[in-house]
Amino acid sequence: MRDVAIIGVGLTKFGELWDVSFRQMMMEAGARAIEDAGIDGKQIDAMYVGNMSSGQFIRQEHISSIVADHAGLVPIPSTRVEGACASGGLALRQAVIAVASGIHDIIVAGGIEKMTDVLTGQATGALATAADQEWEVFVGATFPGLYALMARRHMYEFGTTEEQMAMVAVKNHHNACFNTCAQYKTEITVEDVLKSPPVTSPIKLLDCSPITDGAACVILAPAEKARKFTDTPIMVAGTGQASDTIALHGRSSLTSLRATIEAARTAYKIAGVKPDDIDLVEVHDCFTIAEIMAIEDLGFCKKGEGGKMTEQGETVIGGRIPVNTSGGLKGKGHPVGATGIAQAVEIVQQLRGEAGKRQSDGAEIGLTHNVGGSGGTAVVHVLRRGD
Amino acid sequence: MRDVAIIGVGLTKFGELWDVSFRQMMMEAGARAIEDAGIDGKQIDAMYVGNMSSGQFIRQEHISSIVADHAGLVPIPSTRVEGACASGGLALRQAVIAVASGIHDIIVAGGIEKMTDVLTGQATGALATAADQEWEVFVGATFPGLYALMARRHMYEFGTTEEQMAMVAVKNHHNACFNTCAQYKTEITVEDVLKSPPVTSPIKLLDCSPITDGAACVILAPAEKARKFTDTPIMVAGTGQASDTIALHGRSSLTSLRATIEAARTAYKIAGVKPDDIDLVEVHDCFTIAEIMAIEDLGFCKKGEGGKMTEQGETVIGGRIPVNTSGGLKGKGHPVGATGIAQAVEIVQQLRGEAGKRQSDGAEIGLTHNVGGSGGTAVVHVLRRGD
Repeated sequence: MRDVAIIGVGLTKFGELWDVSFRQMMMEAGARAIEDAGIDGKQIDAMYVGNMSSGQFIRQEHISSIVADHAGLVPIPSTRVEGACASGGLALRQAVIAVASGIHDIIVAGGIEKMTDVLTGQATGALATAADQEWEVFVGATFPGLYALMARRHMYEFGTTEEQMAMVAVKNHHNACFNTCAQYKTEITVEDVLKSPPVTSPIKLLDCSPITDGAACVILAPAEKARKFTDTPIMVAGTGQASDTIALHGRSSLTSLRATIEAARTAYKIAGVKPDDIDLVEVHDCFTIAEIMAIEDLGFCKKGEGGKMTEQGETVIGGRIPVNTSGGLKGKGHPVGATGIAQAVEIVQQLRGEAGKRQSDGAEIGLTHNVGGSGGTAVVHVLRRGD
Repeated sequence: MRDVAIIGVGLTKFGELWDVSFRQMMMEAGARAIEDAGIDGKQIDAMYVGNMSSGQFIRQEHISSIVADHAGLVPIPSTRVEGACASGGLALRQAVIAVASGIHDIIVAGGIEKMTDVLTGQATGALATAADQEWEVFVGATFPGLYALMARRHMYEFGTTEEQMAMVAVKNHHNACFNTCAQYKTEITVEDVLKSPPVTSPIKLLDCSPITDGAACVILAPAEKARKFTDTPIMVAGTGQASDTIALHGRSSLTSLRATIEAARTAYKIAGVKPDDIDLVEVHDCFTIAEIMAIEDLGFCKKGEGGKMTEQGETVIGGRIPVNTSGGLKGKGHPVGATGIAQAVEIVQQLRGEAGKRQSDGAEIGLTHNVGGSGGTAVVHVLRRGD
């Protein structure tokens, strides 16, 4: 397999983008990535697009063709990949595998979701189709409800507190204030989170990531050609993907995502690194408890100590291992199909030293962690500055 | 890149399977493929699933996790791929690329669609989301309508007749009579087709493929390991994929699918073969005109002569180049996400000499041709008997 590098990145504004269409969002992110890479669109050989549910959100499947068409890239192969909220990470992984295989050289991996053109109830209904319809949703489970079960069990087993969860939201909102693309550039306090309306106890409104429109793109090339395009190629040092039962009831633990653990193990092994080698991470904080579980499952602290690690300030910018410098899903926003790619965009900008006021100094190795549903899918990538 | 072989295939019955769930269908096809390959489920490294619109048909996204879970294959990577009715072909292609890259050895490529659990109007509505919602469907275009435009133009330019189109349906129903998995095991006549209810002139009911439930699986392995599992490995000699404008109005021709031509060119080149070398094909006959256009675009006759070639009996079993020996989408049925994989199942069975009463004698090289929407995506694979 060939080594693979990221040579360009692009992101739209994340938010309620009622005046921008699905097609326009994808073109904007793609054009920025192409400009960033300094390539011509004609050099692109293939495209992968992560998208969870355009069929339900905008009544349009077959978006791979839409995207290639509107980008003027017909007849290149264009493929949509779906794994709920992990769709973006999966698209990145397919693109990495395709470049590594040698079948294509320059590939765009994009992610997109247009979620706010339907009523909020319809959006949460569409999101619920990432959970098990027959065994969970039919009997009344919602996504906040599933994560509330995990949070409650985490509190019971490890003494994790609602204040510690709130601190995740406070940190991520703070980081988002320095990200021009973020949906929420507003500081919040622990008290704000604790007093926000209950959703499914112990999860409150400000523990939840929002519903968001947005798109993101990265451009990949074989490592040996990457320096033709950029002085700062970012290597995809490791990729890992794993699955788990889609429904919670089949799992041996409610406080770990097995898919995260397995995907990380593979990615670390391929990259030849350990958790201690990682300088910063973007994790899948769809709810605040998810970030706490993620930093444990990825090996940055012992199981059960994610809340304490957060409370002690180890995950802030400048801390031992900055988590979600972009603002994360909570602060930057969570256009579900775009999130996995947007995480890679953030890590690339950090490793290049281009993250402005949210820069984590001297970062050499970063990691992205993208989860589908309540953990039925997880994708982990280790990114490293090119030598 | 490593060479890739198909070592096992499996198919469910195609039809209105109201007593079989989505999960059950996928398990049935998968179990048959595993049994056919003579492997243990634990040897499987990864899974790709082609599916067009489970979100609309059964209100369930994230089916990759469902499938891995119910097959007992957690935590292997499992990924859904979507490109409308080409989803199955795309899943096969991703699996081929992944084995070729060396990242995985044994991969299942599945395809599935559960279409009959909703009302027919809802099903055709869901299918229409493979066309351009903003520029085609919003102004009243339907899929039969789009193919009717192509048919009418083909008749005008080349003198293709409604009788010739009907002959495609007659042949494919005839072939389906020898396929135990087929939805329609009923002979029909040219007169039956011509007298069937008009849908969108010149397309009549019996020119259309049906709405179908079904699933299909193939199992891939690196060529150098394939003989451990089977005496008759079938090599994936070439893979090609291409895109085109999703809407018809942007194309320079209504009588060719550019995506088919480009995908075939790539697949032929990789395989090192010409159209004349192909012994039999499964093409995407979603409407009868689509088969006529396909055999032209794939190079089996000159442009415009597909109707005549059909009329002269060159595409029947025993003819110059048998087309859709399985019964095709028209006779076997068209569970949209499964179709691309089911095509590969048929070619494998033919190349192994296991196709029973529909066997095309002495076939060495076969081809599959899978189309998404009205041609926004096409995938072509060349399969060859292992030496």
